Amino acid sequence: MLTETETRLTRALAARADWIAALMDWYRETSRDVEGITRPSWGEVEEQGLERIAEVCAELGLEVVRDEVGQLFATLPGAQRDLPQLLIGSHFDSVNRGGHYDGYAGVLAALGTLAAMVDAGVTPERDVTLIGMRGEESPWYGIAYIGSRFTCGDLGWEEMKALRRVDTGKTLPEHIAALGYDPEAVRAVAGTPRINATNTARYMELHIEQGPVCEDAGISAAIPTAIRGNVRLPRVTCTGVHAHASGAPFGQRYDAVLATVEVLHRFEKWWKARRAKSGSDALLTVGKIHTDPGQEAMTVVPGACSFSFNYSSTDAAEIARGVAELERLLNTVAEDRRVRFEIGFRTGSSPQALDAGLRSDLARAAKDLDLEALSFPVGGHDAQVFAKSGIPAAMVLVRNQNGSHNPHEAMEMAHFQEAAAIYALAAARFAVA
Amino acid sequence: MLTETETRLTRALAARADWIAALMDWYRETSRDVEGITRPSWGEVEEQGLERIAEVCAELGLEVVRDEVGQLFATLPGAQRDLPQLLIGSHFDSVNRGGHYDGYAGVLAALGTLAAMVDAGVTPERDVTLIGMRGEESPWYGIAYIGSRFTCGDLGWEEMKALRRVDTGKTLPEHIAALGYDPEAVRAVAGTPRINATNTARYMELHIEQGPVCEDAGISAAIPTAIRGNVRLPRVTCTGVHAHASGAPFGQRYDAVLATVEVLHRFEKWWKARRAKSGSDALLTVGKIHTDPGQEAMTVVPGACSFSFNYSSTDAAEIARGVAELERLLNTVAEDRRVRFEIGFRTGSSPQALDAGLRSDLARAAKDLDLEALSFPVGGHDAQVFAKSGIPAAMVLVRNQNGSHNPHEAMEMAHFQEAAAIYALAAARFAVA
Repeated sequence: MLTETETRLTRALAARADWIAALMDWYRETSRDVEGITRPSWGEVEEQGLERIAEVCAELGLEVVRDEVGQLFATLPGAQRDLPQLLIGSHFDSVNRGGHYDGYAGVLAALGTLAAMVDAGVTPERDVTLIGMRGEESPWYGIAYIGSRFTCGDLGWEEMKALRRVDTGKTLPEHIAALGYDPEAVRAVAGTPRINATNTARYMELHIEQGPVCEDAGISAAIPTAIRGNVRLPRVTCTGVHAHASGAPFGQRYDAVLATVEVLHRFEKWWKARRAKSGSDALLTVGKIHTDPGQEAMTVVPGACSFSFNYSSTDAAEIARGVAELERLLNTVAEDRRVRFEIGFRTGSSPQALDAGLRSDLARAAKDLDLEALSFPVGGHDAQVFAKSGIPAAMVLVRNQNGSHNPHEAMEMAHFQEAAAIYALAAARFAVA
Repeated sequence: MLTETETRLTRALAARADWIAALMDWYRETSRDVEGITRPSWGEVEEQGLERIAEVCAELGLEVVRDEVGQLFATLPGAQRDLPQLLIGSHFDSVNRGGHYDGYAGVLAALGTLAAMVDAGVTPERDVTLIGMRGEESPWYGIAYIGSRFTCGDLGWEEMKALRRVDTGKTLPEHIAALGYDPEAVRAVAGTPRINATNTARYMELHIEQGPVCEDAGISAAIPTAIRGNVRLPRVTCTGVHAHASGAPFGQRYDAVLATVEVLHRFEKWWKARRAKSGSDALLTVGKIHTDPGQEAMTVVPGACSFSFNYSSTDAAEIARGVAELERLLNTVAEDRRVRFEIGFRTGSSPQALDAGLRSDLARAAKDLDLEALSFPVGGHDAQVFAKSGIPAAMVLVRNQNGSHNPHEAMEMAHFQEAAAIYALAAARFAVA
């Protein structure tokens, strides 16, 4: 059951549908690549998105602030400004030739929520702040959630200044400076949280679903149960010996490709067996594999091969088990084949529960709006950084046709409207109460 | 037992050791890359080598001709010029960051043979012609033996003009023109043999061994039994679906890397079983494997993966069996995993017997010089093109420390001198008789 105010809010959001769609279209055109869209973290396309939404927020009468790294904070002031705020938002960046809605749909859901509250004349008790983040996607600097980690004081200057963007070779501080922000100001505050459990009561993020689970079920939205953790090894290398393809005798071939292939195939079999017999929800992704372009040839036994390794689960023990199995296989195969493996840089994140109270509020909002919502675990999002900082966090996912992190990602605005309605209603109820 | 003339010839070759070593060193310096040396086919470094050896041949009083594609023919005239000639030589080009001796050592062995005949005052009955070839290595244009095939009339203009060098993107005719040769002249003769079984009695090639077989046995030379044939698939592609690494559910991942890995691992097992149970001498090389740099990421289920496939044997049936097994696996895995494989461009060559009479002459020369020589099959060389044209062909291999097609390839001049002595003696005996 909706109150009169809630009905007004829901209608105000629906009335903003074309306005939101126009902002959606504008950014797609701004970001087009050969295929899909590309918005590098701390790049000009990302900055353009932030600028435009900052302008729109100012037009709505919100208090607009850009932080030291250029992230956007836009606040609808509450009646009691000393109450811990409600934080809503998502990120602007995308992977290379990725999809348009990954991140940006969540920014527009937060913007739509605030616009609907303004339009419907809903004055919240506590501040409601839109956060527009940067640097969520890992391909650019090798690690994910740079913006949210900076915001939560979880990323120090030493780590930040060592980050180098893979496509430009420039450091993060160089990119920050190139956009007109002051790296010295970043250095001064890095490691100090702007957002914490004292000043922020809840974090809510809408995001497109990453795989077509809602799509296959024909349901517009989902309220995820937990965020997967993972271990990420950006570049595991195998070193064998380059040799002539038909000259190197059978017993003297130290083939880095066939060694790597054995490790990966055996790991895949182990992984599938774990899922089958122990109910593990782990997912394996080897997104990159390469011989050495400088030395490879069809006629050369490959002496070098590298691959990325990404193993995720909602169960930290399962992730640890995967890493142990990979290490065991690397050692076994290295010994059998007389090649050398090096794991290299390791990154990753812990699995993160999402707040039960907040999830229950979202489920109730869906029910009151006569909408269905699925429940399943999701991959990493900025939400986990806030949750890890002790801020109750939850998410709403929107049905998406072709998965995310690919140029064919899609989303129907009708599905977005339904998911955003659930999100906005739960947000407004919490803010007003 | 050596005749007096043969002893004089052998001593003359030994006396040229420093002169040969100096020519060896000069070209190494000319061709240095970051690691090893690089001499692209129809590139300037290859041309410099041809020019220098052409000058040296002219200084020796040989008749020097460059053909339409810039290959070198340098003839020591025989007493009976209408007898079919003896052809000796090898190639100037190398793989990317390859070794210095692959090809060039054979050019210098042929040059040394002619210099020793001149120095020793040996006048042959038939012409002895050095051939300095180009375009033997497949990485540059995707196919091997371009120069020898052109010489034997086995490469037509249509095929030549479609070849494109992988590093420059330019066509073979463009590279030929860039070096000052006339593509129209090439077009006029392409497909017509300059060398055939009527004008050429034998082809002999000295080459470094491709794997460390002689090295491991501590023997300076080998007289190969046969040339391996092969099937070469420069780029087999797997197409799956790019999707979010932790968003795409377990049952909906069309992972091109894991599919490729399964094919390759199962093929490797099948190959090893064939060798163990049927005595197959087949060799498998997957020299290249790549996800798509434009779309790959550690956090993206890979929707594209490609690899090269090279399967060689002295037994044509064994090669055919390998191709059939690969095709079977590609079909099976494609169906199981709902991905698509495409084999793409196919190339390769038939296994080729080497001439028994010529091999026996080489073995006798080794014996008369009190030198040992091993016997085993080798990978592809220009020799097989001449053999296929009906010209009796054989080879001498030189011991080499680190295999070929890699920057660590090595050769001791003392081993070269021994192998070259066998080669020169057998050549002179045939030419004089």
